[in-house]
Amino acid sequence: MIIDCHGHYTTAPPAHMGWREAQKAAFAGGVAPPRYPDISDEEIRASIAGGQLRLMDERGVDLTVFSPRASAMEHHVGDQAVASQWAEVSNDLIARVTGLFPGRFAGVGQLPQLPGAPAQAVLGELRRCITGLGFVGVNLNPDPSGGYWTAPPLTDRFWYPVYEVLCELDVPAMVHVSAVANPAFHATGSHYLNADTTVFMQLLQGDLFSDFPGLRLVIPHGGGAVPYHWGRFRGLADMLGRPPLAGSVMRNVFFDTCVYHQPGISLLFEVIDPASIVFGSEMIGAVRGIDPQTGHHFDDTRRYIDALNLPPETAAQVYEHNARRVYPRLKGPDRGI
Amino acid sequence: MIIDCHGHYTTAPPAHMGWREAQKAAFAGGVAPPRYPDISDEEIRASIAGGQLRLMDERGVDLTVFSPRASAMEHHVGDQAVASQWAEVSNDLIARVTGLFPGRFAGVGQLPQLPGAPAQAVLGELRRCITGLGFVGVNLNPDPSGGYWTAPPLTDRFWYPVYEVLCELDVPAMVHVSAVANPAFHATGSHYLNADTTVFMQLLQGDLFSDFPGLRLVIPHGGGAVPYHWGRFRGLADMLGRPPLAGSVMRNVFFDTCVYHQPGISLLFEVIDPASIVFGSEMIGAVRGIDPQTGHHFDDTRRYIDALNLPPETAAQVYEHNARRVYPRLKGPDRGI
Repeated sequence: MIIDCHGHYTTAPPAHMGWREAQKAAFAGGVAPPRYPDISDEEIRASIAGGQLRLMDERGVDLTVFSPRASAMEHHVGDQAVASQWAEVSNDLIARVTGLFPGRFAGVGQLPQLPGAPAQAVLGELRRCITGLGFVGVNLNPDPSGGYWTAPPLTDRFWYPVYEVLCELDVPAMVHVSAVANPAFHATGSHYLNADTTVFMQLLQGDLFSDFPGLRLVIPHGGGAVPYHWGRFRGLADMLGRPPLAGSVMRNVFFDTCVYHQPGISLLFEVIDPASIVFGSEMIGAVRGIDPQTGHHFDDTRRYIDALNLPPETAAQVYEHNARRVYPRLKGPDRGI
Repeated sequence: MIIDCHGHYTTAPPAHMGWREAQKAAFAGGVAPPRYPDISDEEIRASIAGGQLRLMDERGVDLTVFSPRASAMEHHVGDQAVASQWAEVSNDLIARVTGLFPGRFAGVGQLPQLPGAPAQAVLGELRRCITGLGFVGVNLNPDPSGGYWTAPPLTDRFWYPVYEVLCELDVPAMVHVSAVANPAFHATGSHYLNADTTVFMQLLQGDLFSDFPGLRLVIPHGGGAVPYHWGRFRGLADMLGRPPLAGSVMRNVFFDTCVYHQPGISLLFEVIDPASIVFGSEMIGAVRGIDPQTGHHFDDTRRYIDALNLPPETAAQVYEHNARRVYPRLKGPDRGI
């Protein structure tokens, strides 16, 4: 079985994104947002069947861990009411997808984060996602400001209320930023990768997993710059008097395989223990084209992994077993897997 | 001949760093800084002979392109007078090193940048570095705020006055941030790498090199996350309607080899044309320890390159010829090379 741990609903029905624009306009104008539109099952089915599901079937992916479009979370926009309502309708839409395609999608929630807001503000929606909508995890944005990095490091006690609930519910968080408001950055070209690298270094410096030994964090996009600079990080851990990474941070942190060429995937598997790697593609997402060098989609990450000719038990670990360990709620009886 | 394009004077005499502390304290106290101390040639010789030069000799490095300690530039501290005086004394010290060890060091200057200050404010010191002190380039900080990223992208016309002088003097800039003021980041663990990735994406999106076809920028630390995610960047260029990277950005951008393990260096040379790679170690710098996996210093990057068994002409390109092309002032008659 092949589980893709990193998919976003980037083909959501236009009415959904249209409402978001109306919500932002209403906030800017100081008026109440319009009612959320009726979206039919057929619209949702069509948006998935011709998009994510078609590609999953083409690539032999059985199940996608599926969350709202990352760049559309836009935690830097609006106020708490705006953030909360946007998270709710986005998560409800994901829940409808998981319901319409049983066994093919597991939901991951968007949290109603906001720059400067207390961490407690997201706990209600977090609980609703897991216990109400049957989701298996959430995305946690380490920089709700959209590129100004005004939040404390993820190792700060500021975030502990979130971790307490994640541990209580036994669900992981994928560390995932959203759109950028800062013109220095490009969302998928630099901000996403920077966030991955930044958070890894925060975790290297801190003792978060001593306080939360069961907490599991997925760092997407192949761990940002980290595997390429693995010697640098091993050396920094040593210089800073931190324990070796393999026995510390890497017991709680998982990198996905959203690296869009063979040399990158080869390096990832050369330096990172496969026990810490979960299969992911980020499709339909950051890079949608076909690589002229290979004739295949850049984000068809399964091809790169298959080309490694891993021992079958290692491949099974990366394609399925690690995901089941990181997302134990995948085995819920209602999911049929 | 082996030219290391990325060395910082991290072992500067204590009196130099002591004065910096006094300068910052004076600024904070609203009084004039003390006079810069007398530092003898012997102090400088000792700080180099037992440090950088010893390691250069051990590793067979003939010449180091040498600049003030990057993390100590601290462009976010003080006002223009503070930044200007600190750049001047730091550059003067580098000039003394190059003078005391003829043929072993070429200077690269620190610019008196400051968040929000106009680019024109650095031009005087830039010219003094090149035409007065005989330096071969400068470091350019794309984020003088120290991690809040308040400056415009390097492709913005804001920076054009700097590029005009760089082109006029035919010297490159190494894109290099400094210490972080933002607690989200660790200077050498995330901020440096993020800056490399960020600037590469800015250059991918913009048309800077159409306006400055002769401009050369060195992106250090092996290009941040870029080579590891080379497929992502190739795909983004395609999605954004930008020209293929090899024939556009990579004609003016050079990555150094400050990647501290064999798999990273191997990947760098697998995906990046050696014509765009310059040898660098960043020593004595970010990571000073010995890798228990190899028994050698993490930052002894020559070992990783030599292990690739490159064709001799490719090795010569990376170790010497590219550096001469990027830093044409290396061939000055007073440098004896």
